[in-house]
Amino acid sequence: MPETVVMKFGGTSVADAERLKRAARRIVAKRENGTRVVAVLSARGKETDQLIAAANEVSPNPDPREMDMLLSTGERVSCALCAMAINDLGHRAISLTGSQAGIVTDTSHTKARILEVRADRIRDALAEDSIVLVAGFQGVSTARDVTTLGRGGSDTTAVALAAAIGAEICEIYTDVDGVFSADPRIVPDARKLPVVSFEEMLEMSSSGAGVLQLRSVEYARNHGVKIHCRSSFHDRPGTVVVAEQETMEHPLITAVTHSTGEARVTLKGVPDTPGIAGRVTTALADANVNIDMIIQNEPVSEGHRADMSFTVPRDDIPTAQQAIAPIAQELGVEVATDPSMGKVSIVGAGMKTHPGVAAKVFTTLGENQINIEMISTSPIRISCVVPGDRVPDAVRALHSAFGLSGEDSIRPEEPFGPFS
Amino acid sequence: MPETVVMKFGGTSVADAERLKRAARRIVAKRENGTRVVAVLSARGKETDQLIAAANEVSPNPDPREMDMLLSTGERVSCALCAMAINDLGHRAISLTGSQAGIVTDTSHTKARILEVRADRIRDALAEDSIVLVAGFQGVSTARDVTTLGRGGSDTTAVALAAAIGAEICEIYTDVDGVFSADPRIVPDARKLPVVSFEEMLEMSSSGAGVLQLRSVEYARNHGVKIHCRSSFHDRPGTVVVAEQETMEHPLITAVTHSTGEARVTLKGVPDTPGIAGRVTTALADANVNIDMIIQNEPVSEGHRADMSFTVPRDDIPTAQQAIAPIAQELGVEVATDPSMGKVSIVGAGMKTHPGVAAKVFTTLGENQINIEMISTSPIRISCVVPGDRVPDAVRALHSAFGLSGEDSIRPEEPFGPFS
Repeated sequence: MPETVVMKFGGTSVADAERLKRAARRIVAKRENGTRVVAVLSARGKETDQLIAAANEVSPNPDPREMDMLLSTGERVSCALCAMAINDLGHRAISLTGSQAGIVTDTSHTKARILEVRADRIRDALAEDSIVLVAGFQGVSTARDVTTLGRGGSDTTAVALAAAIGAEICEIYTDVDGVFSADPRIVPDARKLPVVSFEEMLEMSSSGAGVLQLRSVEYARNHGVKIHCRSSFHDRPGTVVVAEQETMEHPLITAVTHSTGEARVTLKGVPDTPGIAGRVTTALADANVNIDMIIQNEPVSEGHRADMSFTVPRDDIPTAQQAIAPIAQELGVEVATDPSMGKVSIVGAGMKTHPGVAAKVFTTLGENQINIEMISTSPIRISCVVPGDRVPDAVRALHSAFGLSGEDSIRPEEPFGPFS
Repeated sequence: MPETVVMKFGGTSVADAERLKRAARRIVAKRENGTRVVAVLSARGKETDQLIAAANEVSPNPDPREMDMLLSTGERVSCALCAMAINDLGHRAISLTGSQAGIVTDTSHTKARILEVRADRIRDALAEDSIVLVAGFQGVSTARDVTTLGRGGSDTTAVALAAAIGAEICEIYTDVDGVFSADPRIVPDARKLPVVSFEEMLEMSSSGAGVLQLRSVEYARNHGVKIHCRSSFHDRPGTVVVAEQETMEHPLITAVTHSTGEARVTLKGVPDTPGIAGRVTTALADANVNIDMIIQNEPVSEGHRADMSFTVPRDDIPTAQQAIAPIAQELGVEVATDPSMGKVSIVGAGMKTHPGVAAKVFTTLGENQINIEMISTSPIRISCVVPGDRVPDAVRALHSAFGLSGEDSIRPEEPFGPFS
């Protein structure tokens, strides 16, 4: 039984005819190595944006079922075009819609979850020596309607197919070289990480590393799918995401991540009575506003009133204000917002057994006169909310303090093996 | 059981957001009359052309299966957008792909033929009071692949669905007011025909009337589907195409049609031996060149050689020349082409019982100094190949000679009934 690989190409990797042909050559090269290939493609470049614009021209509030029917066409176009290019290279390729590929989802249009993958048709095509191209980001619901999987959907398609057909690896081709110890645009000597664990990758994705979507990493962890995140522009290995193993070396800190799109909302002088935090968070959840951190100061005076702050994505400020306005009015408290917050996080599986890490984070930021506004932690992550304009300094300071750069880094830089 | 109507909107009727919304209002108005509505939509304006251009950028010779996967997305986009617009108008609408609508075809990609229509899903949706939008021009093959139906495919989809669900009528909305006694751009006082028979419409479609595709008229005749061809810009009735009935008044002549894209190919001095016409037509058929007329002159001299001429679409001249070159070389005959030919035809069910019609055609053209190069006839049609630049004169002369204009026309101009 030959090795089977799932290769996923994002929108920038198939944006025009030249890039589509490059992806086709890459797929063919893999096939000529004797590997069976399933490739998952995203919509070309700005195609999804254009379809959304067309919908908004027609309707102020497009029906979700129809939005899915509309948006699912983008990936189909990419797959059909890429199949043509592969056929021209002398290989058999067939494109499949999500439905034809057996991606069965629930009926939550625009954010459907995969229930099952019935990959018989893919298996049959692979057995006939065809290269199979699957339209990412989509499936068919149990009600036989076209669905889409929401943000990061194509990564999830790739991982789900890899799990279903028992692929040796799921390769995610992207416009960066892999996962780095920090954003190289901020830290020029950030290292490409040869390998990270699912748990680290989950923390990194959820704290700002954009290279892999959280949901696909979760799916990969749950189904034991090895991911190789690598560049679509060259052949060098990228970053492999695998299950944590006994034998795995545990660096203290793996990476520094950050995000700059944070905003803080503060309710000033909230009465110190039980249930208010619950009412606020429920109101925000009902309005679909995702809260990242929430803190409540101790009451400062005898009046038993405190400040409650939480962070939300900056774009959600108006929605958040609207959602909590009735509560604020009822309690007679003032709502203040600071739209220019950022967050810096350190992630590392080795942190679990090193209690001194938090202190070093706070000291490092303090030495650099960077104010910490809020803190949250997990066993392998420490996140600090800091003023937005200090985020780059904070990332550089932490990256340097934990010795993540170049030769001195805790994990030796060595290629992870032959994945090209 | 309420009346059911199939409404088909072509590419120009859904070309942009405004037109899509107008089509949506039109569909909703019909629904509000108590009629159940299935609407078949084409791809928006130039969308199909753009997809074909994208394919040609990627591949010099795109794989037909993938071409179908690619092109089928255009109609899905139209349907999803129109469904959104209808939902905004307070009606339930769902869009269905050809496959979801149950259009089962053979496996001839890019020119598939409908084998069966399994319309259960449409019937269920209609029973739930939904408006059903179906992506035209496409189906699913017996091998479960997406197929397209080739030229005029959306008209055929509409007629096939009308037959399958037993719709009272299939309305084809277009950018003209209906079927005319001649092209109004050439004959300003041409009359809109309130009703024509399937047989007349077939002859008209095949001899140049572009308003309805030949194939959809054939399907309608074979399944007894009444077609109403009408304007998408206003509510006045257009032309109804129905089976010929005993009670139907038979005008002598119904319409004058024409085409200008004809070319003549002549083999000069062909030896008068049997089988040569067969070899020539076989070679052309193998090269997929459609011959319209073919004539062979009597040998003019004792050498037993004659001229053989046939007409082909002008764009096919190079292919035709290539196909017959080996035969011409073997026979030692010269091949001449005239790319500027046209054809004018008169069509009328009453012609069957009036043998004098042909004579009147020839006399009329002769009186106008229009040379007749070739002639072909059917029981209800007479076609003459004439020089391309004389086509407008020929159309006007025949239209006038047979009294098809205005008040004097043989068939009284009266509205055919309440189809709006």
